[in-house]
This record gives sequence, structure tokens and C-alpha cells, in this order.
Amino acid sequence: MKFSQTFIPTLREVPGDAVIASHQLMFRAGMIRKLSNGLFAYLPLGLRSFRKVERIVREEMNAIGSLEIKSTVIVPGELWKESGRWDSMGESLLRLKNRLGSDFVVSPTAEEAVTSIVRDELSSYRQLPLSLYQINTKYRDEIRPRYGVMRGREFTMKDAYSFHASEENLDKHYQAQGRAYRRIFERCGLTVIPVRADSGAMGGSGSEEFMVESEIGDNTLLLCKNCGYSANVEKAECKPDFTPLSQVQTAASHILPVEKIDTPEIKTIEELCAFLKTDAKNLIKTLIYKAINVELDLSSAPGCKTLIKRKAAPGAPACYGEAFFAVAIRGDLDVNEVKLAAVLKAAEVNLAADTDVDRITGAPVGFAGPVGLDTVPVIIDQTITGMNDAVTGALEKDKHYRHVSYGRDFSAWFTADIRTVKAGDRCQACGGELYEKKGNELGHIFKLGKKYTQSMGVSYLDENGKSQMPLMGCYGIGLDRTLASIIEEHHDEQGIIWPMSTAPYHAIIIPIKYQGQVQEACDKLVSELEQAGVEVLLDDRNERAGIKFNDADLLGIPWRIVAGDKNLAAGMVEVKQRSEKEARLIPLTRTAAEIAGAVSDALQLQPNGKDQR
Amino acid sequence: MKFSQTFIPTLREVPGDAVIASHQLMFRAGMIRKLSNGLFAYLPLGLRSFRKVERIVREEMNAIGSLEIKSTVIVPGELWKESGRWDSMGESLLRLKNRLGSDFVVSPTAEEAVTSIVRDELSSYRQLPLSLYQINTKYRDEIRPRYGVMRGREFTMKDAYSFHASEENLDKHYQAQGRAYRRIFERCGLTVIPVRADSGAMGGSGSEEFMVESEIGDNTLLLCKNCGYSANVEKAECKPDFTPLSQVQTAASHILPVEKIDTPEIKTIEELCAFLKTDAKNLIKTLIYKAINVELDLSSAPGCKTLIKRKAAPGAPACYGEAFFAVAIRGDLDVNEVKLAAVLKAAEVNLAADTDVDRITGAPVGFAGPVGLDTVPVIIDQTITGMNDAVTGALEKDKHYRHVSYGRDFSAWFTADIRTVKAGDRCQACGGELYEKKGNELGHIFKLGKKYTQSMGVSYLDENGKSQMPLMGCYGIGLDRTLASIIEEHHDEQGIIWPMSTAPYHAIIIPIKYQGQVQEACDKLVSELEQAGVEVLLDDRNERAGIKFNDADLLGIPWRIVAGDKNLAAGMVEVKQRSEKEARLIPLTRTAAEIAGAVSDALQLQPNGKDQR
Repeated sequence: MKFSQTFIPTLREVPGDAVIASHQLMFRAGMIRKLSNGLFAYLPLGLRSFRKVERIVREEMNAIGSLEIKSTVIVPGELWKESGRWDSMGESLLRLKNRLGSDFVVSPTAEEAVTSIVRDELSSYRQLPLSLYQINTKYRDEIRPRYGVMRGREFTMKDAYSFHASEENLDKHYQAQGRAYRRIFERCGLTVIPVRADSGAMGGSGSEEFMVESEIGDNTLLLCKNCGYSANVEKAECKPDFTPLSQVQTAASHILPVEKIDTPEIKTIEELCAFLKTDAKNLIKTLIYKAINVELDLSSAPGCKTLIKRKAAPGAPACYGEAFFAVAIRGDLDVNEVKLAAVLKAAEVNLAADTDVDRITGAPVGFAGPVGLDTVPVIIDQTITGMNDAVTGALEKDKHYRHVSYGRDFSAWFTADIRTVKAGDRCQACGGELYEKKGNELGHIFKLGKKYTQSMGVSYLDENGKSQMPLMGCYGIGLDRTLASIIEEHHDEQGIIWPMSTAPYHAIIIPIKYQGQVQEACDKLVSELEQAGVEVLLDDRNERAGIKFNDADLLGIPWRIVAGDKNLAAGMVEVKQRSEKEARLIPLTRTAAEIAGAVSDALQLQPNGKDQR
Repeated sequence: MKFSQTFIPTLREVPGDAVIASHQLMFRAGMIRKLSNGLFAYLPLGLRSFRKVERIVREEMNAIGSLEIKSTVIVPGELWKESGRWDSMGESLLRLKNRLGSDFVVSPTAEEAVTSIVRDELSSYRQLPLSLYQINTKYRDEIRPRYGVMRGREFTMKDAYSFHASEENLDKHYQAQGRAYRRIFERCGLTVIPVRADSGAMGGSGSEEFMVESEIGDNTLLLCKNCGYSANVEKAECKPDFTPLSQVQTAASHILPVEKIDTPEIKTIEELCAFLKTDAKNLIKTLIYKAINVELDLSSAPGCKTLIKRKAAPGAPACYGEAFFAVAIRGDLDVNEVKLAAVLKAAEVNLAADTDVDRITGAPVGFAGPVGLDTVPVIIDQTITGMNDAVTGALEKDKHYRHVSYGRDFSAWFTADIRTVKAGDRCQACGGELYEKKGNELGHIFKLGKKYTQSMGVSYLDENGKSQMPLMGCYGIGLDRTLASIIEEHHDEQGIIWPMSTAPYHAIIIPIKYQGQVQEACDKLVSELEQAGVEVLLDDRNERAGIKFNDADLLGIPWRIVAGDKNLAAGMVEVKQRSEKEARLIPLTRTAAEIAGAVSDALQLQPNGKDQR
């Protein structure tokens, strides 16, 4: 392809809203253009790389027996009502009505669509397992789309859905998907951090996220320096740094009885530590939370007698619309709201409003505590079970209790692990020190179990003619985000440094001046390279060599071949890899063979089971 | 691929709403499933053929130097407001608001998106010409989607947009697109009827539609038996079958003066002919039309003094919101409302309501006529200019005029060709007889001129540094519709008969029983065929041979290879082409080579300029 005949509008300037390298470079290299916030068009160069990511994903999906289909982008709202997600998805779900007033969604994922297709076709266990995938346009109505295609509103996702007759079989395909994902990222030249959130046990609700490290990542990861354990902070656990009190310890006579003390104008943990000259580890922090759509049974919970469980929608599970909880945790720790919502089986949890805190604790914010609190259920983090002689709020303005012991002075409605794990905490697996990284999620594999097959009524007849509900898994990869991440990992000050697998072209030829014998030699070289399967961009523009060199660095094409009169007179051209500093001269006659060989070597990583290594 | 490992849910029954062959067969062969009216998912078999159509289109676009891009499916409404189409498109444009209240459309075409990208990048004539295309999801909010993917709501279209500095250059690319379209349809095995609507002159607003004949086609085509002329009835012209009257003829003394006659209870042309014992050709039919958004200047037109021209939107042209017209045509002919709207430069035209007819003609419906009518402009079809001694309504209940002559008794505000051409009319080119066909439009190429570059403000500097507006062309092909049309043209009672180019697999192997030596022979044959580049489906299902044969016919795979114990014992297998009646036995050892050769021969039609014929 001649540069003059394609459309690669390179830019020197960085657009004002582009703060990360991939956004800047994709824009400057003429790969993408913005139509509106979060909406990007791929120009020819960008689309070439995008299609290569797409092909890698497709090859790896085909290699594990997943079958490609194509659902629609606009999906009937009825299906989303059946699954319950019409109600449970927040505003990021883009809903619309057609001219006849029917509800539709612009698909963010396709569990509903694929499940509805399978529901109509599935009759026998002999049809299982079944794994279907598509590579299609998705939409998420991000309120603040940022970072170019890394977090756009419209994007392309590979989403696969599998159906199984047994947990063993689901697990087998889940593992195969995991291996396929590792290969996809490896072929793309990406260093991913797989973050498992499963128990390790087969079946169940295991999941694994594939993260890339990123300053602007929207996930915080906890990683073990020692054993390689990794977890999303939302779910990370750590080795306990406390010892639960025994009955004997709790009752120990050397702990003074609870004493109410004056703590005037003292509201924060820091103020309290300073005032009492103690460490936050000796304080019990108590927070009042409002939880929405709580599925947990609260019929015997304190203060919950008047609550009534209702179904939000016909298919949805019964739940309490809202409920309040007191949550106690050791003073040096933070409550992990994702863990809290999970243990409460709640759609979401939020700190209660000040007026609710007043009403529930009988005091203004800052004086809540578990001792004597009976208006709401008390949930305690497991660290509390190790606390003796502690300080906590006294449910009264400007008052705290000291000498408080768990078990002696208060008990909990239930205990759970709801702490936010931080850098410095110890790995639950090996005791090593954990550290933090920011990460972006590129892919996610997930065992859905019967979530959709139950709500949408999918069944088949097993070997004994008995009706069964299949188990499902779902597996997604964001293609745009994967592409941007490749650039994040492979660039320098001058531009992109493409891995061969996703480079828009394998080689760029720069004639110093595209005329005479140079033109002739370059044209011949293009045709030799193309014959050998090398994708070549010929910079035939009438520009200064410096501009062409800069653009070549910006575009990041792996091999650069420079042809000028002087070297050609000696039968030589200059070749240089984008990733290397040094150029070298090689005979023109050997150039095509040498470059073709290098390209072919770099591309040797083939689909699963077919690589030549 | 083994049948048991893919997902091809074939059906005996025809779904109730499927009335055309392609819809029935795509459903029965497990190629598609319906998610909702007009929304279809492609299953693995259907997607394979779909991707082949996609590849053919892509190859032919690349071959003429059009560059692939990918815009978004959800497009900012702002761009559509700039172009004016936000207002001018009817309800088939699916509009939506995001969570922030911004307007968006689900793209039906991408003139706006592509023009906005080019607007930002175009600066110099050196960047022209530029042709960009995408193959992407489109949406049209059809009120009654029917016929499967032939007329769905969501569909995939290849849409290309080109930008040029001169009419010559636009015309060159327009011709290249036309040739590419012919090759695409040829490679797909489709017989298309190209319908030109241009004047044949270069530049201007030429267009060409590519139609396939179809009983359920939404276009009526007029074709010449003699010279091959073809036209959409919306624009078809014919050889005049009248002679305009000369002054002398009009004034001729042998025509009696106008006479008002009683025509009690007579309202229709047929009744009038019977009553007066005359032919409809001697009647002047006069219809009152209401036109919407009329751009034509009416400042000097009769009855239009009070009308005021307004801009509907900032970028839109000024127009009259509505205006009424009397339209007169020879009694045996019908008014072509598309032609009428075009000459009035109106967004649409509709027959006026009865009350409007009363008000305008001073009489109930059935007695309108051009003589003495001065409340609205009178538009006459050119056939009227040949009418002498005719009959027409007298603007009075139960009264008509006779002995009416054009020029003597009435004149027109203007004259135009607004007749609907019918079968039996004469070809304007050669005088041959025209006949009618119903057709579906698969593709359309169109010279847009400056329509979008003007409304959206696109410019570049020419060789002299002067600002110029580029000319545009647009070129679309519906991929789903093309796929369905292939099936319409290639099927029989038993199922689809795929042309090799778009067959989901090239060959199907049917073992009578997939076990023992048959299994061994089939597995070996699959691997030999795949080595040779043949795409093979192996029907390894434990089904009766009859079911497998029926499914093979339904799926329509070009080559069928049957392996059974008896023939194999003699070293033979049975091969049969789907398009042929007779099977024949060939040695197993020669099968792979023979089929591979036949497949390769059938695929020899390569992209533009590279075919081996």
C-alpha cells in the first residue's frame, strides 16, 4: 500500500483531552478519530490493527470449539425484563423505544439474547455442551467516558456463552477459555495479571479477570511479592492479623468494666486516637449503612420486624427494598463495600444519611458503637472478634465507651470478612507482603451457574428423560481496550512499537526521494515482500526524509527499510527494527528474504495447539 | 467440522411467518433465528455464508482503492441536525437519548459521520480523491419488517463515501464502484438488474440501483424487451404517445366551444367513459395534492400569495410547510407521486383531504378540472399538451365540461413528465415494448454532489489556494439482503443450492454409519480435503441416512460425498453435486483431489483484475 493512497492523517500535536499514551498515539498516528465523547471511528490504519486483534481472538475461540454467531446490537427489552436485568442494571444500560413504543436496549452484553436462542433450541443433553461466541458492537452509557477507546461508550467485545449439563463440564470449558485468554494476550504481546476470584473449587461461581497494569486503571489489585497471589481489591482477602478472643480472655478479670468517657467535639478516628493517646487498632469503628434490594433473610434480625420481602419483577427474587445495618470494624481498617454487599446479598450499599444515623444511633454521626445498639442488625468484621479493652462510640453525643470487649459487652448479628485489604497486609496463601497496582480489565471469564437459565426458564431432558436446567459460563474480552493496552505496553517517546502480531503493516519502506532508480527499487521490493506475505507500507509521499522517519516511528511499524541513491549505488538498503536503536545496511537483493523470514518468525505463535514452538 | 460439534438446528417445519423461500430455508437450515420482529441472530452456519459475502464485498472495495474504516453504530444527533436529516428523515430513523439527555441515532447510513471525519482532516486538493467504506451494523425502524433478513430492522450494510475535486473524478470512481458492484453480484452468483436513474451525462446526480427480481420486491421495474433499458417505476420515462397541439390545431374551428353538461352521480373515470361512450384517453383527470416542505419558488404561483418560505432548521433550505396543487393528467394514466414530489422539490406529496378538495374546487371530489381553476397552481402532465376536444370536471357537483382544448380553454402553471409508466408503454430509448418486474434493491450507487459537503461545511484548498467544496458519492450494499437473494435465486423444493463462493462449506461427507472402516475413511478424507483447502462438514450424527440426506439437501452444500461399507469395500465413494440429479461412484483415493479441483475451479472468480479467467 502506498502512503499517498491510504488515509493516515498523522499529527504532531496531542489532543487536549488525551492524557494516556495509547489515546495520544492512536490519535496522532491517525488510527482513530472522535465523533463525540466516548464514540470513536477507526481510520484505515487503526482498523488494520483492530482486525488483527479480532482475528487472534477468533482463532483462539475456534480452537477451543466455541462457535461463532452474530446476535443483534439492538435487543428486545422483553428479554432483559425476563432476566431481571432491565431493572437491576443501572443507568449505564442504554434503553430506547422504537416507533411502536416497544422497549429495546443497545446491548452491553448478550446473556439474554443468547440464552433466549438456546432456550428455543435446546431439548436434549446430547446437544450439550454448547459454547457460542460473537464479536460484536456493545454499548455502555458511561457517564464520563475517558482515555480514548480504553473506556469508550461504544466498543467491540468478544462475548462467549457456554451451556453445560454438569459442573465438571462447565469447569472444563471455563479452564479452556482461561487458557485461550492467556494465549490471546500472549499473542498480542500483552503482560496480563490474571486475577482469580474463585474459591479454587470446581463449579460454583468462580471467575477470573485478566488485568493489565495501568496508571489510570479502574481496578486496584493486591499482589503477593512472594507467591504471585493476585486479587481485585473488591474481593481480596488477607491473612488474619488478629487472634479471636477465647471465652476465657473475654471474661478475664484484668479487663476493666465498660466505662463511659467524655470525648467533647471528637468525631474522627484520628481525633480519638490523639485524645486518648492510643492506636487506631484499639478502636472499634462503627458505620451505619443503607442497603438496597437485600435478599438475605432478615426475619429474625434486630430492628427488622416491620420489613417485608417483595419481588421487584415477576422473575426477580424476593428482597427487602431497603434495610439499615450497623457495621463495625477495627479502627485502622476500611469497610469493603463490595464484600459487604455480597454478604448482605444486596444490590448496593451506601453510607446512611446523617438523619438516618441520628435516628438509628440516637446520636449525631461520630458516636455509633455496637454496645447496646438494638435498632438495626450489627454486622462485624472478623477483626472485631479479636478486640479486647477497646474504645467505641457510646450512642450519645460527645461520649465514648472504653474497656469494651467483644463477647462480653456486645455480640454481633453476624461476623464476616468485610475489610479492605491494603498494601502491607499479608498474603492469605503464603503470608508474604501484599502490594498494590492499578489495573484495567481486558477480559473476564465467569461461571454464571443457573442465574440466567433459571430466570429465563431454559431446560433440557437428561439421560433419564428428566428435565434439567443447564449451567452457564460467560467469557468476555474488550477488543478496543486490548488494542489500546498493546500500545500502552509497547511505545516510547517517539511513538508506537507494535508487536508483529497486531502491527498494521509488517514493514515500511521509506525512499529518500521516490523517483528514478530509488522508485524502481522500492516498487520491486514491495512486490517481492508482498509475494512473501509481508504487509508493506510504502511512504511515497513527497516529504522531507525527517518527516517520513518521524511518522514511521510514530506509526510503529516493526521493520523500516530506507532506500536512498547513495546506498543503492552500492546495492544496499538500510534496515532497522522499530524496537532497536541501530540500523544496518544489507544487500537489496537479500532484503525481501531477510525481512520475510523475520516477520514469519515473529508470527510463529499460532492458534492453540498449532504453534510451531 | 463435525456436525455433532457445531450448532445447526435444522427443522422440518416452516415457521408461520416465513412466506418467501430464503426466509423459510435460512430458518429451516438453522442459519438464523428470530429475536424479535425484524431482529435476527445468525447461527454458525448462517454466519459462515454471511462472512463470505462480507469478504467478497471487502475484496472488491479494496480492489478499487476504497479504504476500510469503522464508524460507530450509535451516532451523535448533532451531526444529523447539521446535515438536516434529523428533521427530514421520517420515523424510520431510530432516535434515542443517552443518560445525559443528548440526542443520538442508531445509524441507518453514515454520510454524516464520515463527512464529519473528512471535514476535520481535509485541507488540500492533494488529499483527494478519498474513498472510505465500512461494513457495519445499520438500523431502520421498519414499521412492518418482513421476509426474514430480506427486510429486517437491524442489518449489515457496506456503505462507502467518496470525496472528489471534480465531476470527472467523481464520475471515474462512480463508474469503478458500479463495476465493483457488478463483480460482487457476479461472484455471489446473483443475476442483478442494474437500474440507472442518471441522465447518462457525467457528474450531476446520477444513480444506479442494483435490483434482483423478486415476487415480494418493493420496487416495480420497467424493462424494455428490445434494448435492455431498465428503470424504477418511480423514475421511469417512456416514449411520448401524444403529439403536442400546435396553435393552429388548438384554434381550429372544427372544435366546438366548451360546453357544460350534466353528469349526475358520476364520479369516476370509468363511469364517465361509460356515460359519454368515450375512451379514458379523451378525459382530463384532475387531482388535488397537498405537498409538504416545498422548496420550489411559489411567489408568483396562483393562490399562493399568502404562503411564506421558512427554514425548518438552521442548516436546512427554506421551504413552504405545505402547499396545494391541482395536477391534471390524461384519463388513462396515473400520477407518479415520486416524479411529482421531485418537480415540486417537495419532501412528500399526498392526495388532499375531501374537505380541502371542496374548498379548492368549490365542488365535491370528482368534479375537479383545470378550466377556470385559479385557487391553486395547475401542474399538467405533458400528455395534456396533446389533448383536444376533451372532457373534464366543471368545478361544480354533477357537471363536466366537454370540447375542452389545452391552450384554448386553460393553461398550466407548468408542465412536466409526471405519468406513471406501465407495462405496454414504449421505451424512450428504442420504442420497444416495456414490461414490468418486481425487484428488491441490493445495492445503490449515487452521486451526492455537494449535498453534505455544503450543509456540513466541508472545504479544501485547490491548486490555486482557493477554498473549494468537494463533491461526494455514496455507495451501499445490504449484506443480509444479498445473502437472502442468493438463496432466492439458488434453491429447489428440497433446500438451498449454494454457489461455491458463498456456501457455508464446500463439501459435506455423509457416512452411512460413522463407525469402523467408514469412520476411518471419512476422517482421512476430511483431513485430505482440509489440507487441500476444502471446507468440509462431516455428518457424524447417529441418524438414519435418510435424515442426513435430507439435511444435506436442505443445507445446500455444493458437494456431497457418501461413504458406506458396501462401496468402500470396492474402494469407492459416491459423489454428487447439489445442483445435479445424478450421483456417481469414484475411487476413494481420487476423491480429495477431484473435489478440491472442482472447488478451486468454481472459486476462480477473484477480486477485480486478479481473476484467472
